[in-house]
Amino acid sequence: MKTPNPSRRSEQSRRAILNAALDLVAEVGYAKLTVEAIAARAGVGKQTIYRWWPSKGAVLVDAVLALSEDEEGAIALPDTGDIRADLRGVLRAIVDEYNDPKIDTITRALAVESLTDPTLNTQITGRVLGPLLEVTKDRLRAGQRAGQVAEGVDLGVAVELLYAPIYHRWVLRTNPLTHEYADTVLELALKALSPATINTVE
Amino acid sequence: MKTPNPSRRSEQSRRAILNAALDLVAEVGYAKLTVEAIAARAGVGKQTIYRWWPSKGAVLVDAVLALSEDEEGAIALPDTGDIRADLRGVLRAIVDEYNDPKIDTITRALAVESLTDPTLNTQITGRVLGPLLEVTKDRLRAGQRAGQVAEGVDLGVAVELLYAPIYHRWVLRTNPLTHEYADTVLELALKALSPATINTVE
Repeated sequence: MKTPNPSRRSEQSRRAILNAALDLVAEVGYAKLTVEAIAARAGVGKQTIYRWWPSKGAVLVDAVLALSEDEEGAIALPDTGDIRADLRGVLRAIVDEYNDPKIDTITRALAVESLTDPTLNTQITGRVLGPLLEVTKDRLRAGQRAGQVAEGVDLGVAVELLYAPIYHRWVLRTNPLTHEYADTVLELALKALSPATINTVE
Repeated sequence: MKTPNPSRRSEQSRRAILNAALDLVAEVGYAKLTVEAIAARAGVGKQTIYRWWPSKGAVLVDAVLALSEDEEGAIALPDTGDIRADLRGVLRAIVDEYNDPKIDTITRALAVESLTDPTLNTQITGRVLGPLLEVTKDRLRAGQRAGQVAEGVDLGVAVELLYAPIYHRWVLRTNPLTHEYADTVLELALKALSPATINTVE
């Protein structure tokens, strides 16, 4: 079994705790979520949770991470050589996650807490958003080597160009979040990142 | 005097209330803000506030609006013919606003409330963000007529390409928000929106 945990039993408890946290936050919201309730739902003692996590926020961060991890515990971003297809898959998957009512509720709850809790914000940006941005930069670097992305482009800004419009539309509920929208953002971003030099404004 | 209000006195009260709301939310945060405290600070009766606004959230929306309104009560976006310079000025001004500790506090407080209060979210997106996006679309339309922006581009997505990366970096505190960053986003966006057709990915 491919897991980072040594024993099957503690991995089963870990999974039960993370699933309980996700179910409960979707049911009662972040404010009313308690470690006690997570423990009861997961069928473990409260101390089992506190042995692994310092707070309910930390449990939720791991729970959200587990949603997008593969079996190896890593965020995956394919490199088929087709940068458009690879990024399209990621952007559409993010749109699908935001449109899932349960993930929407959990992510909004974490967004609210992050705005007022700098520690949780650091955990989320460091452990959820950060790794996604890093694997995306890696994919864009491969695109640079393949001559599909401009050499001089700031990859830190490039990844924000890809993800920020989708986040903006989701968090502000300004317009429907669709695959078509993700594809439009991708086409504009690919043009912006293209190695071709064009006279943008005379 | 150019104001939408008929009498100077009620305009003075309105200004006092909006300024009191801005000062107080920066001091105590949104959760502890009350209409009573706003009234006391502004030197008006509570009923004066309730005559004009249904809630403290509604007062704050107007207060934030007043920060970016000109004397005519309209959000302004210049059209000098130089689309790069015009948009650069707007993006840098937004960066400056987010970096102002008082505006940062107020905007984060409103962002938290918007995530959990759909009515306030509709007020903010409709009355603060919406008008900004509309005047920006107008400016891009002028750019299309001048041959600086592609005809076929979706202007609803184009404006998100300009503003979303700045919002994303501000709300998630991932990296410093600087004029240089705003300028980099603008250059990438102008390239993405350019009328030139380029072979983005072979």
